[in-house]
Amino acid sequence: MKIYADNAATTAMSEAAIEAMTKCMREIYGNPSSLHTVGQTAMEELDRAREEAASLLGCRADEITFTSGGSESDTQALTSAAAIGERKGKKHIISTAFEHHAILHTLDALKKRGFEITLLPVPENGLISPDAVRDAIREDTCLVSVMFANNEIGTIQPIREIGAVCRERGVIFHTDAVQAVGHVHINVVDDNIDMLSLSAHKFHGPKGVGILYAKKGIRLSNVIFGGAQEKGKRAGTENLPAIVGMVAAMKEACDGIDKAKDYLIPRRDRLIDGLSKISHSIVNGDRDSRLPGNVHMCFEGIEGESLLLLLDDRGISASSGSACTSGSLDPSHVLLSIGRPHEIAHGSLRLTLDESITDEAVDYMIKNVEEVVSYLRKISPLWNEKVSGEREFILN
Amino acid sequence: MKIYADNAATTAMSEAAIEAMTKCMREIYGNPSSLHTVGQTAMEELDRAREEAASLLGCRADEITFTSGGSESDTQALTSAAAIGERKGKKHIISTAFEHHAILHTLDALKKRGFEITLLPVPENGLISPDAVRDAIREDTCLVSVMFANNEIGTIQPIREIGAVCRERGVIFHTDAVQAVGHVHINVVDDNIDMLSLSAHKFHGPKGVGILYAKKGIRLSNVIFGGAQEKGKRAGTENLPAIVGMVAAMKEACDGIDKAKDYLIPRRDRLIDGLSKISHSIVNGDRDSRLPGNVHMCFEGIEGESLLLLLDDRGISASSGSACTSGSLDPSHVLLSIGRPHEIAHGSLRLTLDESITDEAVDYMIKNVEEVVSYLRKISPLWNEKVSGEREFILN
Repeated sequence: MKIYADNAATTAMSEAAIEAMTKCMREIYGNPSSLHTVGQTAMEELDRAREEAASLLGCRADEITFTSGGSESDTQALTSAAAIGERKGKKHIISTAFEHHAILHTLDALKKRGFEITLLPVPENGLISPDAVRDAIREDTCLVSVMFANNEIGTIQPIREIGAVCRERGVIFHTDAVQAVGHVHINVVDDNIDMLSLSAHKFHGPKGVGILYAKKGIRLSNVIFGGAQEKGKRAGTENLPAIVGMVAAMKEACDGIDKAKDYLIPRRDRLIDGLSKISHSIVNGDRDSRLPGNVHMCFEGIEGESLLLLLDDRGISASSGSACTSGSLDPSHVLLSIGRPHEIAHGSLRLTLDESITDEAVDYMIKNVEEVVSYLRKISPLWNEKVSGEREFILN
Repeated sequence: MKIYADNAATTAMSEAAIEAMTKCMREIYGNPSSLHTVGQTAMEELDRAREEAASLLGCRADEITFTSGGSESDTQALTSAAAIGERKGKKHIISTAFEHHAILHTLDALKKRGFEITLLPVPENGLISPDAVRDAIREDTCLVSVMFANNEIGTIQPIREIGAVCRERGVIFHTDAVQAVGHVHINVVDDNIDMLSLSAHKFHGPKGVGILYAKKGIRLSNVIFGGAQEKGKRAGTENLPAIVGMVAAMKEACDGIDKAKDYLIPRRDRLIDGLSKISHSIVNGDRDSRLPGNVHMCFEGIEGESLLLLLDDRGISASSGSACTSGSLDPSHVLLSIGRPHEIAHGSLRLTLDESITDEAVDYMIKNVEEVVSYLRKISPLWNEKVSGEREFILN
């Protein structure tokens, strides 16, 4: 059996997205900035895509900037809000300890430019409280950035409430919604969001394209310099085929959120319940406020990497955490942030499902994770010391 | 007759590029950073694409960084070289007055950060002399950036010689080769190039993808922050389908350079000769050191925009200059740089051909440009004042 259970890393493109994109590549190849009919036809298609994306997010078309993906959107959101803050003498930014590296590394760069960064600690359930945000806001705070849903443990944050706190205090609120768009309902107005980043390939759209939403009045700074595209704030010939493919996938995903939830949540929960029967294991992240397809566990006494490789041999594509840091031997900063000790954090497994998942596949995953965890523990000297009582178990 | 003569703005994708890209979208959807087989299959494909791109440029695979296109490559090249210079206390950069805005606007940003910028003046023939570069280099020069071929007037610069001057003086040499790759032979080693930017959609590849070549030892600074992709220097899930499509198009274009030249140059020259017969007109850019498909003229007494719109009515997609600035009413900075007066610069026409051009299409363009120029002059009060002797002609 082949099971792709790494949809948080990337998704297979939907047929609708591939077709929309391919049709555009063949038929609407003009440069939207060209004055002639071939170019203006492309510009009309771009306008239509922008209107559609705006309507799916609940914003205005002129609040949408098309980018090359989530990392670029995050980089531009943070550097823009920082520039606005700097002009007002406000150089304090609040974020959280378990953000994606696109946020954390941009904040590192801003720190070098003299910004003070407060990273809110994350409670064990992985949910940031609006009160914690309120308490951290200062007179000189120019930006709060809290991710909509965590890319590893899948927790969905109380974004609307955090947004309300920021609005009350007049601070720009950005959310990295890369894992959330197309999976949970989002309306930037109702949810009090000033800036939002998304990436198409996380909802069965193409790679290399994303959106930065910025509420009217928030002036963007360029990350990429050049021509006058995107009102001069994002240079480079507009990637129309990818934008059209993204919007097709976004519409499909957003329209199907309730159906996907109804299908995925019972299967996700059965998978979590099944895996929780493995001794000395723990579920990471809140059970309820959680992405419909996200399962994230730690198993004591094993190495996540070995687990992945053996599951891969059995046809299961899984992950230990973020694909973006998979080359690293350090334990996940997300798991450390929710208080998992290093040893436990190393034994992590993320299974992220899409609607192609079957009940049979869920059973197959439970059975195989059980077998592989059991095998890896058998060959682990550390585990055997625990069994024989020479060392203590960390998890029950 | 429908003629797309704006290939410098963007090109239609080749069927080989569309097919390579679509196949990849359908079959190799994994995230190259994922450890499982689906991800590693994508990584192998990415490695193959990188090797192929490197072999086409004459460099090593690890000198290739995949970006979202020419503007990003230019932004990253210049900011990286500037950061290297800054660490050594060298804050002087040399470029030219007729670069693309991706260069000029990045230089503006660097100027605000305390860099001193020398923009070399451009002679009337549009060719930058290596001696002018030599004379401008100072002890504190950290970077020379000269475009390989101009995007408006199509002049091909003596890059190898300019590179040799930079090498002799130990200064990093970058070239924006967005208009040149796939159209003229380039080998970064033979041509003494330290950094090079390219964009796929200028040689019948996909939009939204490009390359930044940086010679081993040149440390890149991030423009986009996040994960560890591209050795940590360009975050964001690798856009594998577009990269594969780009490399397919690049191979096709590079392998076909001589054939394309043999086909295009006689047709380009016939078009230039035909249009030159229009009175009070002038060819912009050197006649010989010129892109095989580039025709660029100015016609006295007309507005370029009106010319374009009337040609569009007759099925000809043309441009007055860069698509990236087409919204602007200012005359082209490129034409001003080669000494064209404002009035003449406003009456510009760029026709950029690809191999789909026929002899019949060339004749059709000559005939229609003649007719439209003649019509526009007839209705122009300014032109009529010149004809009646009340004003002087600028061009012969």
